Amino acid sequence: MRRSTFHMKEEEEIEAFLKEMTFGFLGTHGDDGYPHMTPINFVYEGGAFYMHGSRVGQKMRNLKANERVTFAVAKEFALIPSYWNDPAMACPATAFFKSVFVRGTAVVIEDAAEKAAAFEAFMRKLQPEGGYEPITPEHPQYAKELKAVGMIKIVVDDMTAKFKFGQNWPEARTDHVSSELERRGRPMDADTAELMRKYCPHHKQQES
Amino acid sequence: MRRSTFHMKEEEEIEAFLKEMTFGFLGTHGDDGYPHMTPINFVYEGGAFYMHGSRVGQKMRNLKANERVTFAVAKEFALIPSYWNDPAMACPATAFFKSVFVRGTAVVIEDAAEKAAAFEAFMRKLQPEGGYEPITPEHPQYAKELKAVGMIKIVVDDMTAKFKFGQNWPEARTDHVSSELERRGRPMDADTAELMRKYCPHHKQQES
Repeated sequence: MRRSTFHMKEEEEIEAFLKEMTFGFLGTHGDDGYPHMTPINFVYEGGAFYMHGSRVGQKMRNLKANERVTFAVAKEFALIPSYWNDPAMACPATAFFKSVFVRGTAVVIEDAAEKAAAFEAFMRKLQPEGGYEPITPEHPQYAKELKAVGMIKIVVDDMTAKFKFGQNWPEARTDHVSSELERRGRPMDADTAELMRKYCPHHKQQES
Repeated sequence: MRRSTFHMKEEEEIEAFLKEMTFGFLGTHGDDGYPHMTPINFVYEGGAFYMHGSRVGQKMRNLKANERVTFAVAKEFALIPSYWNDPAMACPATAFFKSVFVRGTAVVIEDAAEKAAAFEAFMRKLQPEGGYEPITPEHPQYAKELKAVGMIKIVVDDMTAKFKFGQNWPEARTDHVSSELERRGRPMDADTAELMRKYCPHHKQQES
């Protein structure tokens, strides 16, 4: 997050966003001269990222050849039309979003207990209502499945986030655009207006 | 798309998806040993992808050093809980999504007329209701802005798509899960059920 304009309990904000988001993009070094990217479900648990997939696919080959990977998560909240800020010029058109970037080291998990624990974390996140037998390496059916599937742990070398909600705008512009968002009323517009006010340094100063 | 199970007017499907999606991830070769990924608004026009940003940022430095880039767009439609397919095992838990991957060559656009046309395409896509003066290189204010901002064209070397909606499932499973989606009723569930039926090869056979 841009610290010059944004003073928050940043770790909590990032963790909440990573809990809400179900998938991100894993970037690996391709063997064809192009960066390789895979959209993939993930769980962030104990300070590391976990994701699973085929033991023998391109992604697995790539990260075995070069363990340095990137993981990115982004959510677009609202497109802000130019005319909310300027009656003539197109230039102020923009988008508000949250994004998190991780540079990390990929480790293929081979230990059955660690693998089972990672799958449990996945299910707690993506199927919190339950409805399945606990995943343990002793379970006869799971034991076989756990061997067949690959689980990757990404140890975080560096994590940054950018939450863009007009934090550097003058107060009057924030007030105008957040009102316009509420008036427009697309699915995420009200949430976006609330985040604009929450992150706006002017509003924050008034609170403190 | 996986041609073994999916027979469609594929180009039309991909183009419609690229029109609907406002942002994707641009993958470039970083200079720090990690793949570099940037979430970025885009427009797909005339068989190429366009995106804009700072003329002097990391992304621009990366693609000047290595013009081979990747662009990926993905949308998750629904998480499918395991218990819709199996009362005991967690393994069938999955996610349905559309994704498009491009391997391409990045070109930095310097020509003012081409740059203006690309920005116009952006605005037509992201602000179709208008509300701005047409972007031309002759416009005195735009002329200055056009020089200040970078526009990247990605020439497509290769484009693939994966739409995952259980196309390889038996018909009874498709019918059961699409009914459960409609019953659950989360925001995209009804659309997902419709796409499952649309892409299901059994339903398609009956139609033909």
